[in-house]
Amino acid sequence: MTIQQLTEAIRSKQSYLCVGLDSDITKIPAHLLSRPDPVFEFNKQIIAATLPFCVSYKINTAFYESQGVKGWETLEKTVNYIPDTHFTIADAKRGDIGNTSSQYAKAFFETLNFDAVTVAPYMGADSVKPFLEYRDKCTIVLGLTSNSGARDFELLPTGNERLYEKVLRTVANWGSASNLMFVVGATRAEEFTNIRSIIPDHFLLVPGVGAQGGSLKEISEKAMNGNVGILVNVSRAIIFAGEKENFATEASAIAAQYHQEMKGYM
Amino acid sequence: MTIQQLTEAIRSKQSYLCVGLDSDITKIPAHLLSRPDPVFEFNKQIIAATLPFCVSYKINTAFYESQGVKGWETLEKTVNYIPDTHFTIADAKRGDIGNTSSQYAKAFFETLNFDAVTVAPYMGADSVKPFLEYRDKCTIVLGLTSNSGARDFELLPTGNERLYEKVLRTVANWGSASNLMFVVGATRAEEFTNIRSIIPDHFLLVPGVGAQGGSLKEISEKAMNGNVGILVNVSRAIIFAGEKENFATEASAIAAQYHQEMKGYM
Repeated sequence: MTIQQLTEAIRSKQSYLCVGLDSDITKIPAHLLSRPDPVFEFNKQIIAATLPFCVSYKINTAFYESQGVKGWETLEKTVNYIPDTHFTIADAKRGDIGNTSSQYAKAFFETLNFDAVTVAPYMGADSVKPFLEYRDKCTIVLGLTSNSGARDFELLPTGNERLYEKVLRTVANWGSASNLMFVVGATRAEEFTNIRSIIPDHFLLVPGVGAQGGSLKEISEKAMNGNVGILVNVSRAIIFAGEKENFATEASAIAAQYHQEMKGYM
Repeated sequence: MTIQQLTEAIRSKQSYLCVGLDSDITKIPAHLLSRPDPVFEFNKQIIAATLPFCVSYKINTAFYESQGVKGWETLEKTVNYIPDTHFTIADAKRGDIGNTSSQYAKAFFETLNFDAVTVAPYMGADSVKPFLEYRDKCTIVLGLTSNSGARDFELLPTGNERLYEKVLRTVANWGSASNLMFVVGATRAEEFTNIRSIIPDHFLLVPGVGAQGGSLKEISEKAMNGNVGILVNVSRAIIFAGEKENFATEASAIAAQYHQEMKGYM
């Protein structure tokens, strides 16, 4: 699925919700642990329960890598299980010198066939461009993240602007709004007006609503553009809404609430 | 193996060579491709051939992830194959919000039992500290990288210093020289005197010698400290020294040359 197709899905479904599959094996319901692949079983039920309310799934690779080869198998099964009506994001935050970034791009865009992957900007142009060479895929570069550590470097002044602003302005020239998005955390709502002045047209992937405390209302008001232009990710608040056998029903109910709220903002 | 033990190995062997297992399946000798796991077969022979001349192996995760589950199996087999006389580095350049970085730390320090992992600094303290909580392991944070893209952000002025200097100075406070190293590319030799004024005691992992053109002589003169304090990585120039059946012999010869040269600088 391309960004163009994602935009159409958002309009027709009246939802810009992305469900984050941060499927920590130590947090999934206990009754699943006897299954051959507990995390995949969890993911399947979460996906089935939330599919009507969201347009995208974001798989956080860390929670799979921590389980070694078995986790990587679960990751592969999960991305293959998501129907092509939904935009798939590998939240991997990769980035390395050019010939190595090419291998990461291959890993996520070819071997695993994700629609999008998140990329760290620190190492500059040749670390990002190998991803952008896949013109029908989407590269999502970290701009301003939702965590407290964003203050350490991302918000540092550099010349007339702060580092993350320089990153947005610079990286925007390496791709187009049709194959490049940026991560901007929902916990930085005060920055969204400024961000839209720098990158009016690009989609923003916005994590930080839910467990991290960002306000859906505030970011929807400040960050949307004429093309909707935001994909709001919620992970823990949806997937761990329930802890027992009925976890999928509870996840569905929370996803439906977000969907309902989003309809009101569109 | 800890940084302390690595230092002892460097002194006793008179080598600070790290061999980078960037084992691209499209570049390994053709006769290996009929083996059940060609890359593992390649790695085993490279490791056996270079073991006497180096003190460390660096596995670049991108070249394994690009092969999917099978690649992750090869990665696991390779790190398990490296004897504990040698310091093992996962060159993974991970980094995310705190609860996610904890999962990456678990992946590389527990599940795969690497001695060290490379980490990207962009997202700040809470993205790096979960790695540093493993006090007997080593976290290697990107400082100034060897690629051309380093100019885009790492060399930007921020206040009285450049971003990478700010990163070195800030991150150095989060760990100690016994559990924290920095990546500094060999192609930036002109910066080493300055770098040593900021972080005199920390080990530097120095890629960029060989295929990328950095000078071993120059970086050895400028970057060593009283504790040796550098680990120089060579990947392609060693592992792809030969293209035929005798590739391991050729790799061994090049590794031996680097070892010989390093003896002269110690």
